Amino acid sequence: MSRPTSFPAQLPHHLVERAVLAALEEDLGLAGDLTSQATLSLFATATATLSAREPGVIAGLNLAAAAFRLVGSNVNFAPQLADGDTVAAGKIIATVSGPARLVMSAERVALNFLNHLSGIATLTRTYVDAVAGTKARICDTRKTIPGLRAFQKYAVRCGGGANHRYSLNDAILIKDNHIAVAGSVTAAYQSASAFAGHLVAIEIEVTSLLELEEALAAGARIVLLDNMDNAMLARAVAINAGRATLEASGNVKLDRVRSIAETGVDFISTSQITMGATPLDLGLDVEIAGAKP
Amino acid sequence: MSRPTSFPAQLPHHLVERAVLAALEEDLGLAGDLTSQATLSLFATATATLSAREPGVIAGLNLAAAAFRLVGSNVNFAPQLADGDTVAAGKIIATVSGPARLVMSAERVALNFLNHLSGIATLTRTYVDAVAGTKARICDTRKTIPGLRAFQKYAVRCGGGANHRYSLNDAILIKDNHIAVAGSVTAAYQSASAFAGHLVAIEIEVTSLLELEEALAAGARIVLLDNMDNAMLARAVAINAGRATLEASGNVKLDRVRSIAETGVDFISTSQITMGATPLDLGLDVEIAGAKP
Amino acid sequence: MSRPTSFPAQLPHHLVERAVLAALEEDLGLAGDLTSQATLSLFATATATLSAREPGVIAGLNLAAAAFRLVGSNVNFAPQLADGDTVAAGKIIATVSGPARLVMSAERVALNFLNHLSGIATLTRTYVDAVAGTKARICDTRKTIPGLRAFQKYAVRCGGGANHRYSLNDAILIKDNHIAVAGSVTAAYQSASAFAGHLVAIEIEVTSLLELEEALAAGARIVLLDNMDNAMLARAVAINAGRATLEASGNVKLDRVRSIAETGVDFISTSQITMGATPLDLGLDVEIAGAKP
Amino acid sequence: MSRPTSFPAQLPHHLVERAVLAALEEDLGLAGDLTSQATLSLFATATATLSAREPGVIAGLNLAAAAFRLVGSNVNFAPQLADGDTVAAGKIIATVSGPARLVMSAERVALNFLNHLSGIATLTRTYVDAVAGTKARICDTRKTIPGLRAFQKYAVRCGGGANHRYSLNDAILIKDNHIAVAGSVTAAYQSASAFAGHLVAIEIEVTSLLELEEALAAGARIVLLDNMDNAMLARAVAINAGRATLEASGNVKLDRVRSIAETGVDFISTSQITMGATPLDLGLDVEIAGAKP
Amino acid sequence: MSRPTSFPAQLPHHLVERAVLAALEEDLGLAGDLTSQATLSLFATATATLSAREPGVIAGLNLAAAAFRLVGSNVNFAPQLADGDTVAAGKIIATVSGPARLVMSAERVALNFLNHLSGIATLTRTYVDAVAGTKARICDTRKTIPGLRAFQKYAVRCGGGANHRYSLNDAILIKDNHIAVAGSVTAAYQSASAFAGHLVAIEIEVTSLLELEEALAAGARIVLLDNMDNAMLARAVAINAGRATLEASGNVKLDRVRSIAETGVDFISTSQITMGATPLDLGLDVEIAGAKP
Amino acid sequence: MSRPTSFPAQLPHHLVERAVLAALEEDLGLAGDLTSQATLSLFATATATLSAREPGVIAGLNLAAAAFRLVGSNVNFAPQLADGDTVAAGKIIATVSGPARLVMSAERVALNFLNHLSGIATLTRTYVDAVAGTKARICDTRKTIPGLRAFQKYAVRCGGGANHRYSLNDAILIKDNHIAVAGSVTAAYQSASAFAGHLVAIEIEVTSLLELEEALAAGARIVLLDNMDNAMLARAVAINAGRATLEASGNVKLDRVRSIAETGVDFISTSQITMGATPLDLGLDVEIAGAKP
Repeated sequence: MSRPTSFPAQLPHHLVERAVLAALEEDLGLAGDLTSQATLSLFATATATLSAREPGVIAGLNLAAAAFRLVGSNVNFAPQLADGDTVAAGKIIATVSGPARLVMSAERVALNFLNHLSGIATLTRTYVDAVAGTKARICDTRKTIPGLRAFQKYAVRCGGGANHRYSLNDAILIKDNHIAVAGSVTAAYQSASAFAGHLVAIEIEVTSLLELEEALAAGARIVLLDNMDNAMLARAVAINAGRATLEASGNVKLDRVRSIAETGVDFISTSQITMGATPLDLGLDVEIAGAKP
Repeated sequence: MSRPTSFPAQLPHHLVERAVLAALEEDLGLAGDLTSQATLSLFATATATLSAREPGVIAGLNLAAAAFRLVGSNVNFAPQLADGDTVAAGKIIATVSGPARLVMSAERVALNFLNHLSGIATLTRTYVDAVAGTKARICDTRKTIPGLRAFQKYAVRCGGGANHRYSLNDAILIKDNHIAVAGSVTAAYQSASAFAGHLVAIEIEVTSLLELEEALAAGARIVLLDNMDNAMLARAVAINAGRATLEASGNVKLDRVRSIAETGVDFISTSQITMGATPLDLGLDVEIAGAKP
Repeated sequence: MSRPTSFPAQLPHHLVERAVLAALEEDLGLAGDLTSQATLSLFATATATLSAREPGVIAGLNLAAAAFRLVGSNVNFAPQLADGDTVAAGKIIATVSGPARLVMSAERVALNFLNHLSGIATLTRTYVDAVAGTKARICDTRKTIPGLRAFQKYAVRCGGGANHRYSLNDAILIKDNHIAVAGSVTAAYQSASAFAGHLVAIEIEVTSLLELEEALAAGARIVLLDNMDNAMLARAVAINAGRATLEASGNVKLDRVRSIAETGVDFISTSQITMGATPLDLGLDVEIAGAKP
Repeated sequence: MSRPTSFPAQLPHHLVERAVLAALEEDLGLAGDLTSQATLSLFATATATLSAREPGVIAGLNLAAAAFRLVGSNVNFAPQLADGDTVAAGKIIATVSGPARLVMSAERVALNFLNHLSGIATLTRTYVDAVAGTKARICDTRKTIPGLRAFQKYAVRCGGGANHRYSLNDAILIKDNHIAVAGSVTAAYQSASAFAGHLVAIEIEVTSLLELEEALAAGARIVLLDNMDNAMLARAVAINAGRATLEASGNVKLDRVRSIAETGVDFISTSQITMGATPLDLGLDVEIAGAKP
Repeated sequence: MSRPTSFPAQLPHHLVERAVLAALEEDLGLAGDLTSQATLSLFATATATLSAREPGVIAGLNLAAAAFRLVGSNVNFAPQLADGDTVAAGKIIATVSGPARLVMSAERVALNFLNHLSGIATLTRTYVDAVAGTKARICDTRKTIPGLRAFQKYAVRCGGGANHRYSLNDAILIKDNHIAVAGSVTAAYQSASAFAGHLVAIEIEVTSLLELEEALAAGARIVLLDNMDNAMLARAVAINAGRATLEASGNVKLDRVRSIAETGVDFISTSQITMGATPLDLGLDVEIAGAKP
Repeated sequence: MSRPTSFPAQLPHHLVERAVLAALEEDLGLAGDLTSQATLSLFATATATLSAREPGVIAGLNLAAAAFRLVGSNVNFAPQLADGDTVAAGKIIATVSGPARLVMSAERVALNFLNHLSGIATLTRTYVDAVAGTKARICDTRKTIPGLRAFQKYAVRCGGGANHRYSLNDAILIKDNHIAVAGSVTAAYQSASAFAGHLVAIEIEVTSLLELEEALAAGARIVLLDNMDNAMLARAVAINAGRATLEASGNVKLDRVRSIAETGVDFISTSQITMGATPLDLGLDVEIAGAKP
């Protein structure tokens, strides 16, 4: 396992700032960290190491850095790895130092982001590794935690995955409902083409090989093969003959993903990598040095 | 399984509005649902049923209702169950009707909230059922998805669990670091008592029976027993003799939770019920009736 | 001139609400409309007609409606046309009635949106009409007024135009700088293809026919022909032979746009339709009936 | 042409920050600048020069600076001119250097502000120069782009113009509707005087010389002469005899503005300078130096 | 005592909504009203009367109404008086009815606004009554609680007072510092006149009769007489001879205010009416009818 | 008088930033400080000293510092005391230096916070001193200015007081209404205990000694003695015999507070310290040095 690309994705700075600020507000409320105020002098200082308690792929270091920066000032966060890097159990990821009250106040916010996103990156990497050697790329869906989409999709990239559309407004995906109303695959595709500007990608979902053929005839360049078994996927790849980009979707599990990839599809999308991930166990070990009052 | 209490928790209205608005903004962006605009007439209407594809406990109906309300207007969302209710596979949870473009635009936001929160409520219920008949109550932690804490903790209540503190500012929890700086359990507890007003609960974390005895002697009324095995938990319960409320924490798994409960502790806290839950499979089946243009 | 499409674009509700609220805040400040408070009784009522003082294409009725709704309550705004409709000089567009203070307070905000956006829709329609009968579509750019992009691009659609990408995050547009760094058109295109998911459209800008050939050979499906004269555009169309979608850009003026369209390009993009538009002259005629105090 | 005043206007810092942040959000969305991420290494650096492609008056440098600052960090923006300065075609206005991805990500936001506001400053200067030597001052109106009023009015000042009221809440302007309800010019003026505190300026609009005389008799100190021709304006100036400040408004065009000024009015207000301006052509020339990956 | 004017001031709707929403967020936090959730059934209903426990002048009914509306829905708030009305002890001001949990959740927010603002209106009325029969008007200052200025100044109007400027941006007030830098009263006044548009009022602060004469000679129309005793104020009034509006400021107390008014000044400004007011004692008596669970 | 504790409370950084930014927006509006722009050169500099004009306790220095920082940049604020310190009349509290326009623009915001909060801290200290030597602690209520609760409660701590609950969501306080619905003190207490997690403090209000006995029997650990006279308070203390924490509330005035304390209650709560405080008189003396233009 190595870093996924020499062109890593990069989160917009303002998104990081805003999400971390909201998380600090959520955890600090109107009175702040009562425990630290009650037991730590204003002048106590802390040094801490962030390390992995199990192996995985790191994602979210900028969010952790922002938590320690936005909690006040004077906290130094020094990462030793970058997002997308793999980490072994016990390995130090970053060091933190500064006023003890501030370090303690930001700890949970930093960890909640890091653990969650690194969990997604790690699971994505498992899927990506499972299809290694095929041409299939693993990608996500719009089944994400509300408010976290930018970060979850970023974590997918850190894990080596690709991103499906970010939102309803950056690509067209024609599904069964839209086809039913339009009357046919062809009619739906033509409506979409007439509406969309040339920089809007159009994907159409098909549930049968007949629909696939109709979509290709209508000029579709991206086709989602919905809930097909591997045999049918293989036939779809053969029918397509390289004309459209093919995405397999539906009922994707880790133990089946390689066999899907081997049918020759281009993309395999699954909400498992975002919604099915569990947090990666990372922890902060803090030492506080401070004159007792 | 039945509804957890005649006094159900209730989410503040403004939190629901704000979170759903942010989620709609995330999914609709600057141009909105391009696919619906491209394939559905302004005058097409939709009727839909929200139903369970697997059994579980529902949480988040107000958020789903808000998604359909805030996407525009004229969408009717009629729940047939309430948060905290159990639902069987195939059972209808709610019906939706209104302008087709709006129904389609809000669908994913509504489901992302409902599936996620119902997953937490369902898993919580499993833990709660596992300790049925004991006096132990299951509760959550501050390990939550940033930005979602109010909703995740609400889902825990829908599943029959209790809530640990919501944030650093509504209770004091003295941990090992704080004790180390203060010099002793007694010193830390006294500092906290001197600082806190009378409406701030103070909990102190102990890792040994000696520390427990010291905490009780210092007047502690709430004690967290950190990472103790069942034998030690039972001895702690005996030592305590009903003086303080005891919370067991650390390494809590579903297959061990009942044996912990049987030691006689009052609360068992675990991040599993929030961070380890997977979405409950709920779906929206939509019928669109609309003149083709 | 008729309405542009049976599938009109639709602004996300929350964007309308937020922009209008911000505009009201800007115009009402801390004390509100002092003049109305100073001269109109709380109980005075107003009826008003919104009409065109010159012919054009309407855009922004939802924003005007929101201005009258969000200024308070009890104001009725009844449109008689829809966005995208053409209007003759003197024609009534909508009627307004309600408390006189509120009608007067919202008037300027409603008009500032309507006049500006209708100006864009009207100018766009002029460009669209100029290329009627060719296959070329007129589209906008990212040269828009900060904060108004969603609305300006919506107005372009109301005028019959198409939209180029909305932002840096919904499509890739490889320009000369990116090519220079990558080393060649081919290298830049390959980098972009390796990075992007399958729902991200990739356009590449070329400044010569040689670059066009290289881009086509690299698999480009969307090519921007930058600042070419009509003769070179015609040669580009011939070389392309239907393989990629071709966009002409640079130095597009109304008196030249038809000749560009006749070269056979698919899209003609210009910032003139957003940045060069002047407000359409619409006005509100108000009658106030109100007991003098 | 020289700088307008030794006391230049100054935009509140927080307005600049907020508007630029909103513009960056608009342009960067959830995923940021995909093209730069796809083609530029994290470590590539850029140097750029901002220069004028046509002569004009500069406005908005603080907004451009904020765009490069708020997109991340480490970008240096060094202006060589100040707002209100005139610039010749080809002249360098500022230099920029920093991480290439960030420079590219902020470019369009910086230019959209600068081009728009400098266009307003330049057109204002043309009007101001046209009345040079008279005592008339050119001023703006409330016909501005929603959300941009503070910046557009600031640009008017950079061009040497004056500002009419910023919003409905910082001065009273009694118009025909208010007079009609009050029953007379006198009654309306008295109502306003009774209502307003002593720091609220009161202007009254008149459409005839009779109304002007009535307003002066009622004690009016600021009078708007609405839509009068030059002959009537001259008679109004004579009647006024220096008592009130006189503002001419309505149907003000560049080719008529000097003749209006020569009637002796004090202020000439027009929405042309804000709504009729076109962007000043400024551009950023970027050089990227960066190891290919 | 009667209502202050037939043209009452009116708070912008959006300010009321935003301030009340923020206050509800402050009081309800992430979990809402725990006590009501713990002891009241979802279906319990409440009826309540808002009444005065001491006599005074009411201000803030719209804010109270918004508290009950924004806490959820279904709460009915029916005022029996209007802002600016006087109320006797024991008199009912409004009735409230709706779901008991919601009524209880909004109670404190509604009262905190009403009590505070009615306290200001009542104290202002006392000052206004103290100068009855003179031409002097009582007005406020910019010494207000941060975030509450619009509401506190509105309460001053409800009490019959006038408003000084709302903020640094809606009028010019030249103080000693500015004069010192400019070099003289005349120079400072000329700078300000040259800078300001014609709708910006200019007031100049003087501390001696000599400065007053200089200001009048420079054309000043509004003069603040700073910290003068009554004898000097009377001489200032004589010197002024009706030319400028005169404001007395500094060391204004209730027992001295009439003697100041009798010197003949036009305005008397004091921060006492905003910063020195204590809450008017209003209370909500609630009856809850609700099936016990 | 000395500083209240070696563990001073600490305001969350983000609350300070947000409140000060809102206050600057309120005071600077769209155009900023017109007077400074009109009379001070861009290059003028100011030095200033913040000092006390009467003795008191300081609170809010971080807010003042933020005002000078957020108004722009380059302003240096150097405090010579800390929050909670007492200050004598005439004593310097802090020095300020920087661009004159910025110093003048932030002055009022900084003072409005400081004067208000120091007034609360000073009055609180008076109450705290009045009960010195008893075990009673003075605490606040939820009767606070909307939007200022965090800061007002912080000021109470600076004055040596304790805080009652911050909001409806961080502790349960069972009042007469809740008891009436539940049917009895016991029933209400049991409902609350069943609902609340173990980190939520539960207080119950009683109005008679009978109710007190019932509450104690039900297990209550915190009891509010509502509106009892000193004799009854003393009997309540005797009945309680150390079992619960006792809070006296209602009709608390400075001249009675010591006698209440001497009854032996643990806490005395009063809204007087927040709502009855008047601003502490602090002032900023500014020297401006700046070339005239």
